[in-house]
Amino acid sequence: MIIVTRIGVTEDEVDQIRERIEAAGLRTHISRGETHTIIGCIGDEERLEHVPLLSLPGVEGVHPVMKPFKLAAREFSAGPSRIPMGQVEMGGETLVVIAGPCSVEGEDMLVETATAVGAAGARGLRGGAYKPRTSPYSFRGLGARGLELLARARELSGLPVVTEVMDTRQVDEVAGHADVLQVGARNMQNFALLTEVGRVHRPVLLKRGMSSTLKDFLLAAEYVMKQGNMNVILCERGIRTFETATRNTFDLSAIPVLKRETHLPVIADPSHAGGVRELVAPLSYAAVAAGADGLMVEVHPRPSEALSDGDQSLDFEGFRELMTRLRPFAEAAGRRVEESNPSAVA
Amino acid sequence: MIIVTRIGVTEDEVDQIRERIEAAGLRTHISRGETHTIIGCIGDEERLEHVPLLSLPGVEGVHPVMKPFKLAAREFSAGPSRIPMGQVEMGGETLVVIAGPCSVEGEDMLVETATAVGAAGARGLRGGAYKPRTSPYSFRGLGARGLELLARARELSGLPVVTEVMDTRQVDEVAGHADVLQVGARNMQNFALLTEVGRVHRPVLLKRGMSSTLKDFLLAAEYVMKQGNMNVILCERGIRTFETATRNTFDLSAIPVLKRETHLPVIADPSHAGGVRELVAPLSYAAVAAGADGLMVEVHPRPSEALSDGDQSLDFEGFRELMTRLRPFAEAAGRRVEESNPSAVA
Amino acid sequence: MIIVTRIGVTEDEVDQIRERIEAAGLRTHISRGETHTIIGCIGDEERLEHVPLLSLPGVEGVHPVMKPFKLAAREFSAGPSRIPMGQVEMGGETLVVIAGPCSVEGEDMLVETATAVGAAGARGLRGGAYKPRTSPYSFRGLGARGLELLARARELSGLPVVTEVMDTRQVDEVAGHADVLQVGARNMQNFALLTEVGRVHRPVLLKRGMSSTLKDFLLAAEYVMKQGNMNVILCERGIRTFETATRNTFDLSAIPVLKRETHLPVIADPSHAGGVRELVAPLSYAAVAAGADGLMVEVHPRPSEALSDGDQSLDFEGFRELMTRLRPFAEAAGRRVEESNPSAVA
Amino acid sequence: MIIVTRIGVTEDEVDQIRERIEAAGLRTHISRGETHTIIGCIGDEERLEHVPLLSLPGVEGVHPVMKPFKLAAREFSAGPSRIPMGQVEMGGETLVVIAGPCSVEGEDMLVETATAVGAAGARGLRGGAYKPRTSPYSFRGLGARGLELLARARELSGLPVVTEVMDTRQVDEVAGHADVLQVGARNMQNFALLTEVGRVHRPVLLKRGMSSTLKDFLLAAEYVMKQGNMNVILCERGIRTFETATRNTFDLSAIPVLKRETHLPVIADPSHAGGVRELVAPLSYAAVAAGADGLMVEVHPRPSEALSDGDQSLDFEGFRELMTRLRPFAEAAGRRVEESNPSAVA
Repeated sequence: MIIVTRIGVTEDEVDQIRERIEAAGLRTHISRGETHTIIGCIGDEERLEHVPLLSLPGVEGVHPVMKPFKLAAREFSAGPSRIPMGQVEMGGETLVVIAGPCSVEGEDMLVETATAVGAAGARGLRGGAYKPRTSPYSFRGLGARGLELLARARELSGLPVVTEVMDTRQVDEVAGHADVLQVGARNMQNFALLTEVGRVHRPVLLKRGMSSTLKDFLLAAEYVMKQGNMNVILCERGIRTFETATRNTFDLSAIPVLKRETHLPVIADPSHAGGVRELVAPLSYAAVAAGADGLMVEVHPRPSEALSDGDQSLDFEGFRELMTRLRPFAEAAGRRVEESNPSAVA
Repeated sequence: MIIVTRIGVTEDEVDQIRERIEAAGLRTHISRGETHTIIGCIGDEERLEHVPLLSLPGVEGVHPVMKPFKLAAREFSAGPSRIPMGQVEMGGETLVVIAGPCSVEGEDMLVETATAVGAAGARGLRGGAYKPRTSPYSFRGLGARGLELLARARELSGLPVVTEVMDTRQVDEVAGHADVLQVGARNMQNFALLTEVGRVHRPVLLKRGMSSTLKDFLLAAEYVMKQGNMNVILCERGIRTFETATRNTFDLSAIPVLKRETHLPVIADPSHAGGVRELVAPLSYAAVAAGADGLMVEVHPRPSEALSDGDQSLDFEGFRELMTRLRPFAEAAGRRVEESNPSAVA
Repeated sequence: MIIVTRIGVTEDEVDQIRERIEAAGLRTHISRGETHTIIGCIGDEERLEHVPLLSLPGVEGVHPVMKPFKLAAREFSAGPSRIPMGQVEMGGETLVVIAGPCSVEGEDMLVETATAVGAAGARGLRGGAYKPRTSPYSFRGLGARGLELLARARELSGLPVVTEVMDTRQVDEVAGHADVLQVGARNMQNFALLTEVGRVHRPVLLKRGMSSTLKDFLLAAEYVMKQGNMNVILCERGIRTFETATRNTFDLSAIPVLKRETHLPVIADPSHAGGVRELVAPLSYAAVAAGADGLMVEVHPRPSEALSDGDQSLDFEGFRELMTRLRPFAEAAGRRVEESNPSAVA
Repeated sequence: MIIVTRIGVTEDEVDQIRERIEAAGLRTHISRGETHTIIGCIGDEERLEHVPLLSLPGVEGVHPVMKPFKLAAREFSAGPSRIPMGQVEMGGETLVVIAGPCSVEGEDMLVETATAVGAAGARGLRGGAYKPRTSPYSFRGLGARGLELLARARELSGLPVVTEVMDTRQVDEVAGHADVLQVGARNMQNFALLTEVGRVHRPVLLKRGMSSTLKDFLLAAEYVMKQGNMNVILCERGIRTFETATRNTFDLSAIPVLKRETHLPVIADPSHAGGVRELVAPLSYAAVAAGADGLMVEVHPRPSEALSDGDQSLDFEGFRELMTRLRPFAEAAGRRVEESNPSAVA
């Protein structure tokens, strides 16, 4: 922590600031400039968390030096984390594409989708059983029945299942059926939920909140990891800005910045970022080109009949074309895309 | 719902769009312009929710006509709602100021604060027992013990207690101790929590999410109201923008816009909006001038020793001065500020 | 300037950083913490402007200590600046309201408006002769003829005239007719124009850019002042955010923050910030409550016939009511509102 | 234009709205729904620009149907525009990379850079003679001398020159030396400048404003085109959002959205979007993968000595590596990257 004092700070004020810092167990280092005096704090910055430094007389600014996240920081791990997801690993050489419907609407459509996306090269199946919806009047998912259908689809397709959990009370239930627990953008700072998913033995796919900085995002991952669950996958899905031409503003730079800051895998959700079908492909290519470890894509057998997010879902033909056209981009980025899923096509 | 078609839309496409709408149970009204054909949908727009209109061939844009919130809409109520809060009503002629520490840190500081703010004219006591913190390493509140202390402070001061609930599993416990349940900005779209607080018989103070539009905000209130709990108080506390000179950007216009759109009371939280003590007073005056029904202000006996938010907390003297200087603004806005709290000073 | 090094920085890297700083003529002060070494730079920070510090090996972050603006900084002036505007001063005890049409549309409407707003207490007349419009197909003002009409309206009403200048080639022409030169939000970082208006002897009313931080805003004022023209009036008019319920997001906090950072007067434009007539009054009250030195309000004899911004213009009756209801707020804020303009009512 | 009326609108109000629209020369089409009446306006929407529809009694909302830009719209042109730039065309099959220093600092560094980037495959040379700088105390370019050096570098390298123009008075001078006139982000809504560059016979490279929507951006292009200059190249360079981890937020989706909306070529500036050297490569790959027609990249012989933007400039080795690694991404996107510039290496 570095404390910059106001022009005209008095010796007494500097002394009082120093005393507060030293009382918290840190050492100080005073550096007098022409107009400002700077106080460096040496030791564990966390101990200063309770000290309202900005309120002390004479303080103009406070600059943290240490990153507030630790377990998520790149320095914490010898190399990039590889997170097991069924027969593949997220974060390894293979580009992992997770695909499936926004919501589980029924058994047939789910099995049909799982088979089709697996055959096209997807390595995970997504599908919402519990759905967060902005309006209480929207379709909110099949709930427990949806979870059972997902487990059934996994059995038939061999694809590990990713599904969202929205309530601390559902964590065990969802963890009993799914391979990866998704925490949605709107719950990224639902700290009770983050804590609870940190206690189970399932990887967590954490989506970035609409107004979360990357620092907030990594601190949310830290909440999960602090409970002992180190298997967190970060997912960029667009942030909220003034631009209305797209549903969200896809923050592509988040991918390389996160890859630099953390050892956790980073994937992108081009469906929610763009909000319309025709943007899914260009955003997917771009995410992979920028270094993403994977993608999560909405696919529906008949998008024009989908109960939610039909506008941004690909149909099977569209998904197959995406996977085919994605391959050279993935290879240019040093990634491998597997041809097809043998379990699925069997 | 109004559907605008693309230039060059074919008759077949228009027919297909019309069929989808009529299949959902609405009537259509076709209007052919020089370049575009417009299809008006007459009937219950909600039935179109499952129809991915933007995906249909020939559709360029979709404009909803009806507001997505109903119970929260101004038209739903004969006049502004008045929500009982102890001996006062939020939404009536009296400006209701809720004050207290960010976190409950102990009995003495809480009782001391309750007494002081009550004596200065506050009509509610705030204080966090369960605290949402961006970092898992920050102080996160006293929990159950904090709730007991709040109940004790209410007894002594006569002030109704407002405190945050963060987890569906805590709703009953918090409702057993508090007069008003606060749902924080980070949980504004925690739909499981909104649903759960909608089931209890306590007013809910709902804070606007950092990246929520006013429409999202009213839909979050609608979630609570749909469960039968009509007593929702809306709180503007700043949104996230590019400006870094303040902790958040206080969206003052939200106050008059919400007063126009809804019958629910609207208050402001100048402490979180500005993030520093010296902004609390000007933001408070402004909020009241713009028509706010109340304020929620952080007050601590010794801000420089606060365990959280010390930088933005007023001390007792500061709060008394705020209340005194607030009076003429409140009167100019047609509001009454009560002199003092007889229970508190007794 | 404070330089924070990366974890594991080498002695050699620290030496190279130090050499670059000392080569620029500053002294350094090294402070070694447990994980980071911090290098304080003592001397004129501007000399470091050409040194790409972030690119030097071992550098993690750079924190400026000195404010980049000087002439605009509060410390530069013994007290708040008072800027002469006709018979009043902007920045003094009197709240100065500038009113008039968005565009000058003709002589009659302008004189009629000047007389009416003057009689209601306005102390300045606004009106656009050259209009910046987002679309090239919109009405763009009467140009030179508009300037003449403004000069004529000043003669008849006694009100000083504020009008926009958009092109370096027009500065002399506009300065020949107007009392105050307005630089619009879209030109806030048109540095050629800022430099040019800095060379004339007319106060400049500088509107905040839609995506300008307050630091950018003060640096734009600094551009004008650096040319010798110290008479700059800052105008908050809303920033661009994700919220679409209002035309712009009125950043009310900008008023008290600017009053703390600079000696220049600060006014608000509630018409552009809100974008609709019914928001003009609450935003005006709030701006004055928060400490604004003045307001700029759009008024038109018949808003429903205005050639531009009719939706946000008040009619004469609306303006009179605003001025009447504004008085108690202004008084609560320690400001005086003058009763009426004797020249105008004569 | 579609007008939605308020619940409870009267027949009289509907009649008055209709009369105003018909008085402007359009026809109307009334559609009565269960709660709202909708008025479709048939004819030239521009004629309604002066009618403040939102102010008319009974109006709740106004939805434009026609796009406000015409010359820039995709429908205006039979296919994508190809804009001549020296020996190549921007918007054709070849990916056009423009490279060079932020500022022209002297003859040697400029010629050295032109030769190096040309040899590595660049097809245009960038370099600022007139520089917009946020602070008036920063280096602002060599001016006229810089233009001469650019012309000299073109002669030696064979690369067409792109340089910024900031003032209407400089347009002829800059057009006399440069092949492409750049209008910077801060001047994107400097309408006087847009008009002036529309009058010369040089392609214009228009950078997106920091808070400009894509609609604003296309309207700015329309300003230039309306003067007769159809050769406009659009450049995405990042927008301003709450995220501070990057200098700007690179709005990648802007590329495919613009390619859909307009026939004009679209390029990206990864240097300004990311703001640090290590982001230039991933953002470049992503932009090309998403369909960009070209890139503009800052390159400096010795970035650590650059007078501006050193932190985000590549050195020659970095640029060569970028060009090499870019090739497979460009090919995957159906683009050609030329091997080298024969004039340059000669």
